[in-house]
This record gives sequence, C-alpha cells and structure tokens, in this order.
Amino acid sequence: MKPGLLVVVSGPAGVGKGSIVQKMMTLSDCVMLSVSATSRAPRPNENEGKSYFFKTREQFEDMIKNNQLIEWVEYCGNYYGTPRDFVESEIAKGHVVILEIEVEGALNVRKLFPECILCFILPPTYEELEQRLRGRGTEDEQSIQRRLRRAKDEFQYIDRYDYIILNDTVDAAAQRFMNIIESEQMRTCRNPEIIETFKNIKE
Amino acid sequence: MKPGLLVVVSGPAGVGKGSIVQKMMTLSDCVMLSVSATSRAPRPNENEGKSYFFKTREQFEDMIKNNQLIEWVEYCGNYYGTPRDFVESEIAKGHVVILEIEVEGALNVRKLFPECILCFILPPTYEELEQRLRGRGTEDEQSIQRRLRRAKDEFQYIDRYDYIILNDTVDAAAQRFMNIIESEQMRTCRNPEIIETFKNIKE
Repeated sequence: MKPGLLVVVSGPAGVGKGSIVQKMMTLSDCVMLSVSATSRAPRPNENEGKSYFFKTREQFEDMIKNNQLIEWVEYCGNYYGTPRDFVESEIAKGHVVILEIEVEGALNVRKLFPECILCFILPPTYEELEQRLRGRGTEDEQSIQRRLRRAKDEFQYIDRYDYIILNDTVDAAAQRFMNIIESEQMRTCRNPEIIETFKNIKE
Repeated sequence: MKPGLLVVVSGPAGVGKGSIVQKMMTLSDCVMLSVSATSRAPRPNENEGKSYFFKTREQFEDMIKNNQLIEWVEYCGNYYGTPRDFVESEIAKGHVVILEIEVEGALNVRKLFPECILCFILPPTYEELEQRLRGRGTEDEQSIQRRLRRAKDEFQYIDRYDYIILNDTVDAAAQRFMNIIESEQMRTCRNPEIIETFKNIKE
C-alpha cells in the first residue's frame, strides 16, 4: 500500500485549481478532495456534502470547540473550515487528500501536519491570469481588480510552499501534480515499514 | 529552462541500477550519467570516456590535489572518483547529472552539494535480489555471498537517502525515477527566478 498523503493546493483566483483537481480525480481513485464545512447558506446549485457541509453558526462553533476542524477562517461574516474526520480517515486508508485553501490556511495546516505538502499553482504569466479572469465574463472590473490585488499578495508567500506547478494546460498541470504526489510517496521518511524490513534481514 | 539537478543513485549489486539509468537516458536528452575517473587499467571491452576516464596513479593524485574530484575512494589498490568539471558544467546547462556511487560516496556528495537528491534502488524482496545475483551466472558462491553481506550493510543507510525506488521492472523503475526528477525540478527552492518574477509584479 502506498503511504497516505495530505496535499494543500493554493493559487490565485482564476488560475485553474478546481479544474486541475477535478482532472486528477479522474486519473487516480486514491485522490480525494476534502469538502469544507461552512456556515454560509447554500446557493441554488450547491449540494450538501459535495460543494460544502452546510452548518449553522452554532453547529460550526461547536465543531471549533470540539477540535473537529483542522483549520478554519471567518470570511465576510461566514465560517469556512476543514473537517478533521474525513482528512484523517482517508489518509489512514493510504489515500491522497487534497485541501484547496488559501495561503493563511495552508500555513496553519503545515503547523499541524508538518508532513503535508504545499503546492502553489502558477499561471504562465501574470498577464495570462488577468486575461483568464476577464475571459470568465462573470465579474465586474472592481471584482477583477480586487482578485488581482489579492493574487499579488499571495505571490509573496510562494516560497513558503514546497512546489510550484505551472498551469499552461489543465491536463499537463494535473499530470505534473500527480508526478509530485507519486514522487512524495517514494520518500524514505514516508516508508518506514519497507525500510525496517530491509534493515532487519536475517541470514 | 528547467533547473539542473545532481542525482545520486545507490543500491545493492544486482538490483539493476545500470539498466535503469540506461533506460532513463533514452527517455530524456537532459539526463546524463557522470563518467568516473579511475587508476585501474582498462579491460578489453572498456572505452576511454565511456566506461571510465583512465588515468595513471600520478594523474589521479594530481586531480585529488587540484580539487578536480567531488568524491573519490581507493578500492582494491585502485582509485575511483567523480570528476568535478563534467558535473558542474552539465548542471549549469540545466541538465540532470546522475552519479552511480556507493553509500559512503553518496553521503560525501551530500555534504558538498546539499541540494543534490539521494535515491536508493530496492528490489521487490531480498530473496529476489539473491535470485538475480545467482541468475547472472557470472559469479561464484563466495562472491555472491560477499555481495549479499555488502547489500545488508548498505540497507542500514537507506534512511539517509531521500527516496526509495522499487525496481520490479526496469521500465517502471525508470519511470518512477523520472517522476522524482521532474517533481524535484518543480521545488520552490530550485526556482528562485520564477518566484522573484511573481513577487515583483508591478501594476
């Protein structure tokens, strides 16, 4: 069995994190996306347990108190967080759990799970990121400018991450990401049982 | 351009290091095997610059004095070492240089080049390694026993390496090894220029 792995992925809005992770889940049955909990009300197209686990503020605060979240933030008056149960049980099964979270959350997860890996998705160029955001056609100029400012803030933290993954095409980026996962699963420190077996060979 | 990389590969005699590295060189033009220098006399099938760089003892000792080797050992009365020139110039070109050396040499290279990666090739089982050594049919029982004892000594150092690579088939092992290389080339610490570019985006 390959070792389980906790993988944090960050990157600016519009860089394609969601598409890459969706593609990876088609490439391997062992790759799981962690579903966040939130106190925000569901939108019409959102499903419980798929988009989010929807909670009341009281339920969410209980989860915080009971240490049932590995990280959480309050953003625009709503809570968002990562339920501990799913992450820990999937890793124990040897699965790869992906958390798609922002820089602050990523650095908090690293403190709690030092053996996790932090990946940052980059566009080919900043100009291309800008074009992708405009190309969506779903946001007004003010919102695009806010996201671009936020992107520049996030870029200041890239060197706190372990890997950078170029997203030129979704397929190529998903393949690079899978390479990183498979490579990390071959790390000596993640395979103590195999090493003990070879260290203790008798005549 | 991808970052250059120094890769050390070790593993017990008979595990298939040579075949894996040969296969990797067919998979990528950027993967180079470092050719060792030796004071041993060439054997009939060996070519200068291909099998080894053949030197007199005096020439080899001059290379040591002039710091032209990144590691060297004396073994059975002959010198063996890794010429510095080739390694440094190929890495500067963005190539991947592979050194196939034993445990002691590997740990010495790590001291001089902390950013190198150390990979240890493992057989599926110890019994299979034993079968492979016997299957060669080229060595007497005493020599096989000596190699197996040496393998057990080497296994004690596996956790000093970064990665373990299973050699079940040469093709699969070469592909795993290429994954590790490509993954290491995406490490944040190996891509300072890309990161500086994104950190310094102006309006």
